[in-house]
Amino acid sequence: MHRTGSQLIARRLGIDTYRAPVAYMRADCPVCRSEGFEALTRIRVEAGGHVVIATLNVVTSDVLRPGEAGFSEEAWRLLGVADGATVTVGHAPVLNSFGHVRAKLYGNHLEPQAIEAIVRDVTAGRYPDVHLAAFVTACAGNRLDVAEMSALTRAMIDAGDRLRWPTERVVDKHCVGGLPGNRTTPIVVAIAAAAGLTIPKTSSRAITSPAGTADVMETLTPVYLGLDEMRRVVETEGGCLVWGGSARLSPMDDVLIRIERALDVDSEGQLVASVLSKKAAAGSTHVVIDIPVGPTAKIRSIEAGRSLARDLEEVGRAVGLVVRAVFSDGSQPVGRGIGPALEAADVLAVLRCSPDAPEELRQRALVLAGHVLEMGGAAPQGDGLRTATTLLMEGSGWSKFRAICEAQGGFREPRVAAFTEPILATRSGAIAQIDNRRLARAAKLAGAPADQAAGLEIHVRLGQEAEKDQPLFTLHAESRGELDYALDYVSEQQDIVHVDREAS
Amino acid sequence: MHRTGSQLIARRLGIDTYRAPVAYMRADCPVCRSEGFEALTRIRVEAGGHVVIATLNVVTSDVLRPGEAGFSEEAWRLLGVADGATVTVGHAPVLNSFGHVRAKLYGNHLEPQAIEAIVRDVTAGRYPDVHLAAFVTACAGNRLDVAEMSALTRAMIDAGDRLRWPTERVVDKHCVGGLPGNRTTPIVVAIAAAAGLTIPKTSSRAITSPAGTADVMETLTPVYLGLDEMRRVVETEGGCLVWGGSARLSPMDDVLIRIERALDVDSEGQLVASVLSKKAAAGSTHVVIDIPVGPTAKIRSIEAGRSLARDLEEVGRAVGLVVRAVFSDGSQPVGRGIGPALEAADVLAVLRCSPDAPEELRQRALVLAGHVLEMGGAAPQGDGLRTATTLLMEGSGWSKFRAICEAQGGFREPRVAAFTEPILATRSGAIAQIDNRRLARAAKLAGAPADQAAGLEIHVRLGQEAEKDQPLFTLHAESRGELDYALDYVSEQQDIVHVDREAS
Repeated sequence: MHRTGSQLIARRLGIDTYRAPVAYMRADCPVCRSEGFEALTRIRVEAGGHVVIATLNVVTSDVLRPGEAGFSEEAWRLLGVADGATVTVGHAPVLNSFGHVRAKLYGNHLEPQAIEAIVRDVTAGRYPDVHLAAFVTACAGNRLDVAEMSALTRAMIDAGDRLRWPTERVVDKHCVGGLPGNRTTPIVVAIAAAAGLTIPKTSSRAITSPAGTADVMETLTPVYLGLDEMRRVVETEGGCLVWGGSARLSPMDDVLIRIERALDVDSEGQLVASVLSKKAAAGSTHVVIDIPVGPTAKIRSIEAGRSLARDLEEVGRAVGLVVRAVFSDGSQPVGRGIGPALEAADVLAVLRCSPDAPEELRQRALVLAGHVLEMGGAAPQGDGLRTATTLLMEGSGWSKFRAICEAQGGFREPRVAAFTEPILATRSGAIAQIDNRRLARAAKLAGAPADQAAGLEIHVRLGQEAEKDQPLFTLHAESRGELDYALDYVSEQQDIVHVDREAS
Repeated sequence: MHRTGSQLIARRLGIDTYRAPVAYMRADCPVCRSEGFEALTRIRVEAGGHVVIATLNVVTSDVLRPGEAGFSEEAWRLLGVADGATVTVGHAPVLNSFGHVRAKLYGNHLEPQAIEAIVRDVTAGRYPDVHLAAFVTACAGNRLDVAEMSALTRAMIDAGDRLRWPTERVVDKHCVGGLPGNRTTPIVVAIAAAAGLTIPKTSSRAITSPAGTADVMETLTPVYLGLDEMRRVVETEGGCLVWGGSARLSPMDDVLIRIERALDVDSEGQLVASVLSKKAAAGSTHVVIDIPVGPTAKIRSIEAGRSLARDLEEVGRAVGLVVRAVFSDGSQPVGRGIGPALEAADVLAVLRCSPDAPEELRQRALVLAGHVLEMGGAAPQGDGLRTATTLLMEGSGWSKFRAICEAQGGFREPRVAAFTEPILATRSGAIAQIDNRRLARAAKLAGAPADQAAGLEIHVRLGQEAEKDQPLFTLHAESRGELDYALDYVSEQQDIVHVDREAS
């Protein structure tokens, strides 16, 4: 139906617009004039069979020569052409599925076909950023019911690859996040794989937190593995710890993450669909989900936790997954480090059974590993924790972790930050409260997760006594500017770590 | 608190990103490295006292020389510097008010202070597009109550200029839109001013429709008037018909319009705040609001219309405006034309009392003018319509309209499109239904409102008999590409104008 469009010479402009494909065309270009293109029109660009929908920026200078069309790095990657190739440009097709998003905004229930149409268009890159933001927002605030979440989960699974494994049971674990330093996954995977289970773990990068498991693992070993490499690692070692995006499992998730991160908004419905679609697409059958609950965690009350657990279990059933939700204490950070490399150091300390390993992280990882062993059939009900502890203490966890890293391309020690600054107690007293959210924000302002070594290290725990001028936590950054930025934020805040004045 | 930042040489890149300010910096630039900037970071740029918050795109080519920072057209306009000037760049301050938007997403009630903080940041250009989209979306679906709407209206009034007029009563009229061709405003203003009332009309451009009143008036006379010019026109003629944005009345509205248009979403709460803040800021005291109701109009049911009328009247009272809501038939387009110049032609036909003037447009304009005359005290209750009709018939409306246009800078006849194509009836029968929304979409695809002469002309009315191959409507476009684009859309649709098959 649509006409072929007009032809221009492709030019790579070397402008990084992150994930949003942008095309640049001259205002005086005959195509702009005859097609009626103007700034921010969505256009369709075709070259050698590849079709990209891009946002148009109109150029009024000599950055482009007549007859040329420029492309941002993302558009260039998607087009896959060489400089000077001929591209055909035309109007983007009308985005009909956005009508369903609009209907959702007005409180309508979405049928599976509507959700499938949205997922198809989002996955194909047809949603501009503001439309993605509207979709994320329309689903926030508990506005998806179980039927909609199940349909969204199924559509997100179908939009990508799906792995199959030879074993009958394939286990996995996931944490809904919101608790800094709660990096149990690498430890759980190592123990489960050491127990002989199949645990092909794919992790995401941070959405709104200072580090995701993929960010942490990347400081230790390559995490960008293709499907075949991942399969080889799992066949050899029983488990892997890779970035989920490279396997194209539930690719819609990676599109949404960028917007969710910018807005610092996770919708519950999208959280359920995101978690379960990744698990199902990765071929898992049994999943343990850790839900930390605390006043400054992502889930703030036990009621909210129960509601999320119910949604996860019900939607899990609808898409063929056995889900076990486990609540944990979310009142303070778990390890000492917050940020990719700092959290990796905590993980290594636990796996190596170092005497100074963070005890809380160790305990939580063992409890979760216990549930995984029970669900996977590697320990009788009620005996998982004991079995997991034995595997860790006798060194099987650490040697399995090393083996997995070697199979993924080699193990390396995490980086250390060039700039650090301790934050001191302004009075003596007991540590009464630790604000997870503001700590996480400080770690992000210091550069985490983009800068591996950035973040912060916490030196105190709830209830402990602190002396005036004793360091409460230390900021780590890879640049002076970011260290200052995080320091600015911390100095503007009252008591991110609250010290109760001593009784006089 | 914030450090001064680092210095770079400003360069105008001549890239039009529409209203979003974008800064371009080299990946290898010491500022990027020391500050930890990466693609899509929000940065603060300062030059000569002007501060702009811009989105960063990182450049990896020679589009920029070392030590330079490039700027999009909008960023350049806001900075107001010369090529080669020194600019200081640093991290953008944290956008704290967005926390309130997040709270709204989760169903919380917003206090006036929260709404003021959001309006302050949006008006200052601190919200990136995805954040604006989230705000628009968070307020959609009847999620603002009367207290929130009132607070939003007040904050939007306070964010801009506010006009004062010497007369005690200042009248205005507004249509909530959604009905193509319902261009009564120029006619009502002409009649009210002819009756001696003060009616300083500021109009907006189209949000999601093919034309706003400002777009239509711009085809006839200059509408970009500053405050002083507008005041002079009103003092001389009693009324004006200008674009509201140039007077900086409720400037937040103009920021939101861009996003609402991209998403094709109007939130009711923002609609109320947008309409009433513009009216109050323009110094109006009495406002007639036309609410067309019909299955394919913006307001689809009389219940929805009543709810909107109640909100408008209550919020009006809260901000000191007397509001009278008037319902009208919204089942089919009002004039013949849809699109700026085509609607202007209809307006002129009514004002000139041409025998072929669209009767429906004439009647509706007279009814509304009647209400305005009654509210303004220029006619006794119940006598407004008669007085308005007399003023139009005796030519006072037309001569006043000409005088207003001359005072604004001169009157001109509207443009005519270069490309037209009739859409023919595929069978004979009675016109049973006309889909306003899809007609509007076709007019937009043809280029309206950006292209003045683009849009469409309707040749039939509901109930009328049509012969097979008789033109139902004619598409108008300024470029061949856009005409084809609209034709593509129309040919894909079933019966935008539905002809009932004749009884055989």
